[in-house]
Amino acid sequence: MMRTRPLKVALLGCGVVGSEVARIMTTHADDLAQRIGAPVELAGVAVRRPSKIREGIDPELVTTDATALVKRGDIDVVVEVIGGIEPARTLIAAAFEHGASVVSANKALLAQDGAALHAAAEQHGRDLYYEAAVAGAIPLIRPLRESLAGDKVNRVLGIVNGTTNFILDKMDSTGAGYQEALDEATALGYAEADPTADVEGFDAAAKAAILAGIAFHSRVRLDDVYREGMTEVTAADFASAKNMGCTIKLLAICERADHGGSVTARVHPAMIPLTHPLASVRGAYNAVFVESDASGQLMFYGPGAGGAPTASAVLGDLVAVCRNRLSGATGPGESAYAGLPVSPMGDVVTRYHISLDVADKPGVLAQVATVFAEHGVSIDTVRQTGKDGEASLVVVTHRASDASLSGTVEALRKLDTVRGVASIMRVEGE
Amino acid sequence: MMRTRPLKVALLGCGVVGSEVARIMTTHADDLAQRIGAPVELAGVAVRRPSKIREGIDPELVTTDATALVKRGDIDVVVEVIGGIEPARTLIAAAFEHGASVVSANKALLAQDGAALHAAAEQHGRDLYYEAAVAGAIPLIRPLRESLAGDKVNRVLGIVNGTTNFILDKMDSTGAGYQEALDEATALGYAEADPTADVEGFDAAAKAAILAGIAFHSRVRLDDVYREGMTEVTAADFASAKNMGCTIKLLAICERADHGGSVTARVHPAMIPLTHPLASVRGAYNAVFVESDASGQLMFYGPGAGGAPTASAVLGDLVAVCRNRLSGATGPGESAYAGLPVSPMGDVVTRYHISLDVADKPGVLAQVATVFAEHGVSIDTVRQTGKDGEASLVVVTHRASDASLSGTVEALRKLDTVRGVASIMRVEGE
Repeated sequence: MMRTRPLKVALLGCGVVGSEVARIMTTHADDLAQRIGAPVELAGVAVRRPSKIREGIDPELVTTDATALVKRGDIDVVVEVIGGIEPARTLIAAAFEHGASVVSANKALLAQDGAALHAAAEQHGRDLYYEAAVAGAIPLIRPLRESLAGDKVNRVLGIVNGTTNFILDKMDSTGAGYQEALDEATALGYAEADPTADVEGFDAAAKAAILAGIAFHSRVRLDDVYREGMTEVTAADFASAKNMGCTIKLLAICERADHGGSVTARVHPAMIPLTHPLASVRGAYNAVFVESDASGQLMFYGPGAGGAPTASAVLGDLVAVCRNRLSGATGPGESAYAGLPVSPMGDVVTRYHISLDVADKPGVLAQVATVFAEHGVSIDTVRQTGKDGEASLVVVTHRASDASLSGTVEALRKLDTVRGVASIMRVEGE
Repeated sequence: MMRTRPLKVALLGCGVVGSEVARIMTTHADDLAQRIGAPVELAGVAVRRPSKIREGIDPELVTTDATALVKRGDIDVVVEVIGGIEPARTLIAAAFEHGASVVSANKALLAQDGAALHAAAEQHGRDLYYEAAVAGAIPLIRPLRESLAGDKVNRVLGIVNGTTNFILDKMDSTGAGYQEALDEATALGYAEADPTADVEGFDAAAKAAILAGIAFHSRVRLDDVYREGMTEVTAADFASAKNMGCTIKLLAICERADHGGSVTARVHPAMIPLTHPLASVRGAYNAVFVESDASGQLMFYGPGAGGAPTASAVLGDLVAVCRNRLSGATGPGESAYAGLPVSPMGDVVTRYHISLDVADKPGVLAQVATVFAEHGVSIDTVRQTGKDGEASLVVVTHRASDASLSGTVEALRKLDTVRGVASIMRVEGE
């Protein structure tokens, strides 16, 4: 049974993602109508540069006044693909106030102000969906908050940034250094002119905050996420990783900690075994591992960015939100009932791979081992190489807290026989 | 805001899956209540053998009268984990008639009577959810019918039976024959005493029917699915596969055909390149590739069977259905508006790997090549080996229809110089 009055959609932003959303809404209009139960109509498109020619979009729909568009009062769903904090936040708030539901792809905003946005949606009885904010087309938000709603998620471990995965994969497969691999990523359009948000881990940290919040039914904000970028990963680190049967990935890791009494969320480069499914995630692809009590290990894999894949996620949400509008219901809102606190990075327990430049003389290993022991960090393996009075020690530890490891490293730096700490890398996925 | 009157759940079946559902409903009662917005209560458990001791289940809830349980009138959700066609079908129909929604894990029933069950659910304004029917804990039904609702799915390619994947993986990694690998699977509990449903592909075919129906918004029944088991896969086939840089998997493949005018669904063993992500799916794990217009390639991976993983999928559905009950809405029902017909296997286009035992004399290759050409099947590569008057020819074709290939093989068998067709295997995933 098809309703004939169309649902009206306002599109905020018409860049790489927005233009794909508009295109699919037009080319797949019949399918969308069948799947929603009513036709869905693009009622307005807010852009910054109205003069730009947008193929397939009626010029009369284009406006520079996004505020007026969301306040029109006849809009059923606002699709926000502008990105950034403002004006997106104010526009979304206005959308709820004027009766619209919202589909957003805005990871930065969700990670910073998710709770307030959810509260506004609930206050006005509207939906806030944002599958596209994490890992592009990969269904992740919906499986976490619906498919696994009867399970207890213990860990989310993923590659959620395609740019950095492209760079690290290139370094791994060609032996290139960071700068060389970044230059290639930029030339191919995988990295932006200013790659800071990607390579320093800000983008992945926002996604980690969103995933941790949903997975653990608690509030986790961007500021709660420990973040280390991958600009200091070297070809030597990849050589060390290979020696251990590992590769290096920039991982977002969200875990229950402290016997379930708290959670941790962090983004940093880490060694993972080549046998781990995440190790074979190539190029700009994303993949996320989810470990739960009952379902065990699940993995979700796919393109983590790009106009069409992100638009697919937006449109899946649009269909759900439109169906909810028609039935007068709302989908799952924020679920933060568990209220678990976020533990600091010092409490995180994992394994470490540490490379030290040391003096090539007897007794150094004993000195170093003593420092580890004094800080309660148990050593798994040590490899010692040396020539011409210079030597290096590679230590791989058993599981230890980040705080203990930091204390160990600080003490090591004070040893006369330790000339430098060449690298410290966490080892995950074992 | 929490409602205090509990939602009542009737559990039909208390075997491997049902007992896990009951256990998690008890141990995670608080979490489930928070996520649903009301407590959820086990109101009755229908079993065949009431005398069996069931840990953690109040004996007063146990009954052998499943019919009376679903007809009580106060049941909000019936969870059906009996399996098989009857009495499950009659009980589900009675559940809808008496006002309950249904969560089912019953792939055989859904593949055979999905349309009628969906119609009954819709008639009574209730939900029919069945995430657990396909690939255990892996979220697949929900992503296909919700996350990808704004996209156009073109192909679903998956390993959806853990038993056969365990056997094939064992054959691949150890060089064992089929019977030896099956015996090990049986000893480890991965195969049932009568493994027919798994090894002959019936289980996978039911899942293929369900996936094809949802992916293509059309009705696909078990009978529409072409099915070949994997009992005739030999160690020699694995050796051939390795020569091609491939392995062998039992695949469920659902595709659009005929320029989108129809669909095909099939289950058979196939060679896939080692570089394909499905090639590295080990043991009893399942994984499903979904290819769509906008989102590109997605993969979903996880445990495809087992009590706890399947229970996780059931409980995810239970939470969704309970939420719908509270809001007075229903989730997405059957979507068969596209009404695409199912094409016969002869229309399927793919590549083939054919091993022939031939006479070791000049001119045989020319004869064989002529037969391929006469049937319009283009040859990609031929490898010829021979000694002592016996020889074998391994032909890999370009893409051709199954009908053309069948005609080719029939004609080859009639050649005097062809002593036998040792194996025919499709090549997928390229």
